[in-house]
Amino acid sequence: MLSHNVDFVAWRQTQQDAVERALERWVRADAPAGLGDAMRYAVLDGGKRLRPLLVLATAEAVGGQSQAAMRAACAVELIHAYSLVHDDMPCMDNDVLRRGKPTVHVQFGQAQALLAGDALQALAFELLVPGDRTVADVMSARLCRLLALSAGADGMAGGQAVDLASVGVALDLPSLEAMHRRKTGALLQASVTMGAATGDVSRDTHASLAAFGACVGLAFQVVDDILDVTADSTTLGKTAGKDAAADKPTFVSLMGLTEAQAYAERVLDQAHDALRRSGLSHLHTLHALADWVGRRAS
Amino acid sequence: MLSHNVDFVAWRQTQQDAVERALERWVRADAPAGLGDAMRYAVLDGGKRLRPLLVLATAEAVGGQSQAAMRAACAVELIHAYSLVHDDMPCMDNDVLRRGKPTVHVQFGQAQALLAGDALQALAFELLVPGDRTVADVMSARLCRLLALSAGADGMAGGQAVDLASVGVALDLPSLEAMHRRKTGALLQASVTMGAATGDVSRDTHASLAAFGACVGLAFQVVDDILDVTADSTTLGKTAGKDAAADKPTFVSLMGLTEAQAYAERVLDQAHDALRRSGLSHLHTLHALADWVGRRAS
Repeated sequence: MLSHNVDFVAWRQTQQDAVERALERWVRADAPAGLGDAMRYAVLDGGKRLRPLLVLATAEAVGGQSQAAMRAACAVELIHAYSLVHDDMPCMDNDVLRRGKPTVHVQFGQAQALLAGDALQALAFELLVPGDRTVADVMSARLCRLLALSAGADGMAGGQAVDLASVGVALDLPSLEAMHRRKTGALLQASVTMGAATGDVSRDTHASLAAFGACVGLAFQVVDDILDVTADSTTLGKTAGKDAAADKPTFVSLMGLTEAQAYAERVLDQAHDALRRSGLSHLHTLHALADWVGRRAS
Repeated sequence: MLSHNVDFVAWRQTQQDAVERALERWVRADAPAGLGDAMRYAVLDGGKRLRPLLVLATAEAVGGQSQAAMRAACAVELIHAYSLVHDDMPCMDNDVLRRGKPTVHVQFGQAQALLAGDALQALAFELLVPGDRTVADVMSARLCRLLALSAGADGMAGGQAVDLASVGVALDLPSLEAMHRRKTGALLQASVTMGAATGDVSRDTHASLAAFGACVGLAFQVVDDILDVTADSTTLGKTAGKDAAADKPTFVSLMGLTEAQAYAERVLDQAHDALRRSGLSHLHTLHALADWVGRRAS
C-alpha cells in the first residue's frame, strides 16, 4: 500500500510533467494579436491536471495508444481551461483570482478572454485529429464525439446554465446531483471514457469505467463543496467561501458538513467498486487517482 | 444564363429550407435552464445560410455523400452563429441588433449568451460525428480537423483578435486582407473544403476549390465593407455604418468606395477562374453562389 502510494506519486509527477510539455508545445504563443499569450496564460503552469491524469491512467489500464492518449489528455484539459476562463468573466462568476493568479480577463481584458476561451475549445478538437494521421481516424472520430457530448448542452455548458439558474433556488439533492453531473461530472467522466477509447475494451468494461468516471466526478464535486467551507483562499488558489456568498446550493448547504463528508466517502467506495467490476487488471493507478480526488485538501 | 439563374434561385430556396429543417432538428429546445432557447434563437430563422450553401454546392459538385454534407453545412453555420453571439456581446462589439432582432445577450442576458455560444461550438463538432455512424469515421475526422482549424487561433478566433487590436490602427491593405482571411475567410473557405471532403477529389481539384473558397471569402468581406457605407440598417438587418463609427479599417476606408467596388469584381473574377481550373464539370451552382456573394445588396 505504501509502495503503491510512492509509485502513484512518482507516476503522477511524471505524467503531470509530460502533460505540461505537451501543452507547452500545442498551445502556441504565435497566435495573433496576443491571443496566444492569453491562451497559454489560461492553460500553462497551473492546476492539478486531474482530467489528463484520468485519461492517461485509463489509457494505461486498457493498453491504449499512447499518442492518442496524450492528445485526449490535453484536449480535455483545454476544454476545462476554457470553461474556467469564461466562468470567471464578469457576466458569469466575476472572479478575479484563479490558481493564485489574476484571472484571464483581469490580465488581458474581457474581449481577449472571451476569444481565448473560444480558441481553446477549437484547439481541443484540433488536437484529437492530428494532421500527420498518428491517431487512427476511427479513434479521432470517437474521441471528438465523446468530447463534444461532454462539453455541450447535455454536458458542461448545460450544467453551467442550470447552475446560473439555481442561485437562490432551493434545489433538492437529486437536482443538485443532476446539475453537477453535467457541469463538472460530464468532462471528468469523458476523461475516463476517452482514455478507454484509446484502446479496445468490451462493452461491459466500458460501462464499468463510465460508472467509475461518474462516481469520481460526483466525489470531486462533493469534496469541492466541502473545501469551499473548510479551506482558505491561499490553499485553494481561488476565492474560498464564494458559493455560500453567492447563495448557491451545495452538498454542504443541503446535507451539512459531516454528512457531506460521509457522502464523499460512500461515493468514493462506489468508484472503487465500479473499477473492480471492470475486469481489467492494472488498476492501482486509477484506484489511487480516485482516492486523490476524494481525499484531497485543495 | 437566365434559366441558370432561375435554377439557382430554386436550388437556393430548396437548400435553405433543408438547412432550416436540419437545424430545427439538431439544435434542440430541451437543453436545460433556457440554454436550448438561447441556442435556437441564435441559429434559427435568420441569415442567408451562405456557408451551408457553399458546403452543399461543393458537395454536389464533387458528388459527395449527402448526409455528411448536410451535417457539415449545419456545423459551419453553428460556428458562424456562435461567433456572432459572442461578437455582439458588450465586451466585444456591443451590438444590440442582429438580423433585425435583439441580439442574444439583449434577449437572454450575457451569461446565457456566453454559454449558448460555447454550446453551439461543441454541437458543431458533435454533428460531424453522428452516433449512428452514418458518416464514415475517416470523413468525420477530416471534417472535424477542417472545422477546428478554421474556427481556432489560426482562423476565425485569431482574426477576431487581430480585429480587436486594429481599432484606430492604420492597417495597410495586405494586413487588412490577412486579418479578414482569418476572421471571415477561414470559415467561408472551410465551407468549400468541407464540402469537398464529403467526396473524393484529387489534390489539384482540392487546391482549386480551396483557392475558390479563399476568393469568395475575400469578396464577401469587401462587399460587406461596401454595404456598411452604402446600405441602411433595415436592409442589412444590423447596424449600418458601425465600422466607420468604431474607427475600424475597412476596404472602403483604405481604397475609397469606387476602387473597393472594382476590387470586389476582380476578386470575383479570380473566384470564377479558380473554379474553372478545378477540372469538375457541374459547377454552375458554385459560379452562381460566387456571384450572389459578390453582387449582393444586403
